Amino acid sequence: MTSAFSRVRFVLTEPSHPGNVGSAARAVKNMGFDDLWLAAPQSSDMPQAPEAIALASGATDVLEKIQTAPELGQTLAPITLAFALTARARDLGPPACDIREAAAMAREHLQQANHRVAMVFGCERAGLTNEQVALCQRVCHIPANPAYSSLNVSQALQLVAWEMRYALIDPADRLPSTPDIKPDPGKAAASGESIQALFAHWEEALIAVKFLDPAHPKKLVPRMQHLLQRSGLSQDEVDMLRGLCTAMIKAAQQK
Amino acid sequence: MTSAFSRVRFVLTEPSHPGNVGSAARAVKNMGFDDLWLAAPQSSDMPQAPEAIALASGATDVLEKIQTAPELGQTLAPITLAFALTARARDLGPPACDIREAAAMAREHLQQANHRVAMVFGCERAGLTNEQVALCQRVCHIPANPAYSSLNVSQALQLVAWEMRYALIDPADRLPSTPDIKPDPGKAAASGESIQALFAHWEEALIAVKFLDPAHPKKLVPRMQHLLQRSGLSQDEVDMLRGLCTAMIKAAQQK
Repeated sequence: MTSAFSRVRFVLTEPSHPGNVGSAARAVKNMGFDDLWLAAPQSSDMPQAPEAIALASGATDVLEKIQTAPELGQTLAPITLAFALTARARDLGPPACDIREAAAMAREHLQQANHRVAMVFGCERAGLTNEQVALCQRVCHIPANPAYSSLNVSQALQLVAWEMRYALIDPADRLPSTPDIKPDPGKAAASGESIQALFAHWEEALIAVKFLDPAHPKKLVPRMQHLLQRSGLSQDEVDMLRGLCTAMIKAAQQK
Repeated sequence: MTSAFSRVRFVLTEPSHPGNVGSAARAVKNMGFDDLWLAAPQSSDMPQAPEAIALASGATDVLEKIQTAPELGQTLAPITLAFALTARARDLGPPACDIREAAAMAREHLQQANHRVAMVFGCERAGLTNEQVALCQRVCHIPANPAYSSLNVSQALQLVAWEMRYALIDPADRLPSTPDIKPDPGKAAASGESIQALFAHWEEALIAVKFLDPAHPKKLVPRMQHLLQRSGLSQDEVDMLRGLCTAMIKAAQQK
């Protein structure tokens, strides 16, 4: 599904702060996308502004690839499913969803190889007009704190790009790989047999140091076992604890 | 579960840019939280720096409430489940998950009223040390683009706060409410009866304007029906289309 990333477009409508264009480029690249458009920007050289370059950080390749069109409709020409990001509920307009639902819908839509998705953001001051929303098939919301929902456009784009990425990546890629670390048998989870042997040894050691009175065991042993089991012991750790048992018993015998 | 929001703490470890502290306050408030701590900040008056105030935007209340401690451990004193955000996989350390899994775990953990969760972020340059990670019960990752994963600490916090919010809010609160809009019977979905009547009228109109030849209907009618059904018609829209049918028939008769 990796190629789906190249079929997702991000569109900033009427941006007026070059810094937001730079931050958007960074967020787009951070999340593995690269197709960023400006619809009716305040000026067509916004991506070349020093503030845009500064805030794009290392994402200058995405910044340089930015395309511009005088109207939102033109940026959506090849798009088969466009989502309009809005904060307000609209009385009339496309069906609404939140950005996680939008990402799931986009994932589904992108299964077909000629489908393309766009996420459309409004201008910094006023968001998208009803006419701009009407160019999209869906409206979507970020359910922020209702008492303080003023998300900056680049923060909103960051969240949307994240949701899209999470929906599109293989679940196996959600944790960093550790190619440098050779499989270490000691790190493997300990077997039941090895844990049972540890428990027996441990009990012996607890008795040896007179922590456990076999005549009045209370619930010490099961509580200890519960604690150790819960932590999911590796074979290395079992070996380490067995060493401790031996040391405890030896110490007690020498007294 | 709303009270769970007050039991989630965000901790910036060794922050050195006041701007990041301000952005963090804004992100914390945007997502409905208010408990932000600095562990070993470069200086204790970072929240009062002009850059912090500027980037906090309207979140000055959260900024003013920020607490500071000389060591990470102190900020975690009342915390029962702490997550360390790291970009790198660690050879030794707590079990790893991604931030969505972390949010689900936190939600579960916060079901118990005396439980408290912390999300711990490292310093801007080098992230968290192994010693700092060891103070946490879990490590968590943001699976960004491996070729360009340099997320700013405030962007990372924004994503984590979003994941926490989404996990904690009532699903009914994921879309903005529309309290000002009175229930309008016309906006309700049309009934099957009303749609069947529309289809009959529609077919009659298509025949009237000679678009549909009843002797060779091809699949025009079912295709039209499929298209109209898919869009989930409201009663208002059915009435509108019925008006169109009447107009089409009238126009054809006058010729």
